[in-house]
Amino acid sequence: MDAKDLDTPVVTIDLDVMERTIRRTQEYFDRHGIAFRPHIKTHKIPAIAHLQVDAGARGITCQKLGEAEVFLAAGLKDILIPYNIMGEEKLDRLGRLARQASAGGQITVCVDSAFTAEGISRAASRAGVEIGVEVECDTGMHRAGVQSPQEAADLAALIARLPGLRFRGWMTYPTTPETVSFFEEASRLLGPSGPTAEVRSGGGTPSMWQAHEALPVVNEYRAGTYVYFDRNSVGAGAATWDDCAMLVHMTVVSRPTRDRAILDGGSKTLSSDTTGEGNKGFGRIVEYPEAVLYGQSEEHGHVDLSACPPERRPELGERVTVIPNHCCVTTNLQDEVVGVRGGKVEITWPVLARGKIR
Amino acid sequence: MDAKDLDTPVVTIDLDVMERTIRRTQEYFDRHGIAFRPHIKTHKIPAIAHLQVDAGARGITCQKLGEAEVFLAAGLKDILIPYNIMGEEKLDRLGRLARQASAGGQITVCVDSAFTAEGISRAASRAGVEIGVEVECDTGMHRAGVQSPQEAADLAALIARLPGLRFRGWMTYPTTPETVSFFEEASRLLGPSGPTAEVRSGGGTPSMWQAHEALPVVNEYRAGTYVYFDRNSVGAGAATWDDCAMLVHMTVVSRPTRDRAILDGGSKTLSSDTTGEGNKGFGRIVEYPEAVLYGQSEEHGHVDLSACPPERRPELGERVTVIPNHCCVTTNLQDEVVGVRGGKVEITWPVLARGKIR
Repeated sequence: MDAKDLDTPVVTIDLDVMERTIRRTQEYFDRHGIAFRPHIKTHKIPAIAHLQVDAGARGITCQKLGEAEVFLAAGLKDILIPYNIMGEEKLDRLGRLARQASAGGQITVCVDSAFTAEGISRAASRAGVEIGVEVECDTGMHRAGVQSPQEAADLAALIARLPGLRFRGWMTYPTTPETVSFFEEASRLLGPSGPTAEVRSGGGTPSMWQAHEALPVVNEYRAGTYVYFDRNSVGAGAATWDDCAMLVHMTVVSRPTRDRAILDGGSKTLSSDTTGEGNKGFGRIVEYPEAVLYGQSEEHGHVDLSACPPERRPELGERVTVIPNHCCVTTNLQDEVVGVRGGKVEITWPVLARGKIR
Repeated sequence: MDAKDLDTPVVTIDLDVMERTIRRTQEYFDRHGIAFRPHIKTHKIPAIAHLQVDAGARGITCQKLGEAEVFLAAGLKDILIPYNIMGEEKLDRLGRLARQASAGGQITVCVDSAFTAEGISRAASRAGVEIGVEVECDTGMHRAGVQSPQEAADLAALIARLPGLRFRGWMTYPTTPETVSFFEEASRLLGPSGPTAEVRSGGGTPSMWQAHEALPVVNEYRAGTYVYFDRNSVGAGAATWDDCAMLVHMTVVSRPTRDRAILDGGSKTLSSDTTGEGNKGFGRIVEYPEAVLYGQSEEHGHVDLSACPPERRPELGERVTVIPNHCCVTTNLQDEVVGVRGGKVEITWPVLARGKIR
């Protein structure tokens, strides 16, 4: 079947493009001796995680426990969950997950407080397993994370004392100029007799190709978006349009005026994630790069054609291809995506870890 | 089980609040003699549509064919799909749906072009059924829809001539001051010997309580959001906070600074839909109304506490309740929602029509 015969809206993944990116990215990290731990939030599909690990990734990153459960069940055994897991129900799930992974794999989590660390310790003790723990550091994102190297070192010392936990190192997102000095100082503060921060994990697709500049301090890297790339990645200079593997095929279902086209997908298909200044709208229309997807309803994309040449504008019933602003959130809206090679449908993948909010 | 023991993030529906709203809204439309056709996009749950129809709704509105398939299979037999349906695969599905519904029900669709109308006519002929058609009119939204009463009348005349179609009337969204004059003029242009616009359908929760002001021209009304209401509804003056039935329960998983809290749900739980000017952020935190949910990552909510009194700020591990900006898109991110009455869990509903983008 040809991809162009798939009913719209539909999300396809260009397999040649994705596989090339997986190879090229792993080669980059291998060349620099940085361990790579791709984030599965972008695809949520175990088959793709296996491609990443087979290419040489150390393991994977999942953002929620429910994602890790899906991926461990699919044979991905080395999983980092860079999240403060708390509450007795989740702690019990974490204990079971860690016990299951301990046969040949490992679960590592991140914490930024004694409160979280103590909960993880209880979970490990109850499950009779050891759980690896990294300290989440805020090195510029201003989201979660300890605020200073001293806090990081103090929390590491607590983790090293708590039963059932193994201190593994530092984790931050994204990787900023402050990351190196923060990690260095935190490691220094651990002292010669303290625990060792073996893993020093940075992350983020936009600055991925500069990861080696943070060597040797940052020695592990997490990236998710890279696997498909998207409009934000191109905007950040991390990819070209030809690197974008995720395409959203839509149909022009209305041409109410000369300058307006309406597509059959809106925020329920692409998400309402916006993008940086100067790169407005909700996606790039490949065939009509001058067109602006300026607005969305849940099921309608609102396109301004006024910048398109009058003789080259999409017709009613025509199919167009959209590169989304942010492929991760587009993934989470799909029950399945279609893998395409050379324009032919090769596989339909259910998005197995979609919607795992807990 | 108490709702407060549900693991987070989780979406609950206060059943008393929702049932009161369904009653009160239907009473309003009954009192004014306006047919009410609730839009199921907000809940995507057939059990709730049955409550709406049992309360007196004429039928339901679905935005996509895939939603209509789910709801017809669940016994909802009078369905309007206010969308330009096109492409042979969808036209075949529409024909099958209309044939199935014809036993005691009906499917009505909307078109804004001869192209769409001719496709629907082919679908009806192939399936051996009659399909009701309304003309979508752009009366101020600047989305899809014919642009003038003359275009509306011309398209109505074409529909009346095409085999398998029955012209039913006009449809617009939302209902603006221009709606009445547009519909009146379009009906006048049909002429005494032309088809009759029996149904003149307006819509939109924000202006729902003013629907009677458009009488007798607008005689059917569609609203979706009203069933749960949300932050946008309150901002528009259509509801109070006490009318909001959808609550998103979250846990504070990080308190990195005095002024910042991080919640365990972000855009993957609430969506990244923003709201009107002067009502910033991604939701209202019920227990801390001064707190601002100013940012989101996919799995993190970023809360600014600086406007909260120093002695009353959420603690690490504490649960909070968020009223989302836009409940419809929050629904579409959930595999299930939990119906709660008096704080106790009464039912868990799978969101059966979630993700039906086609």
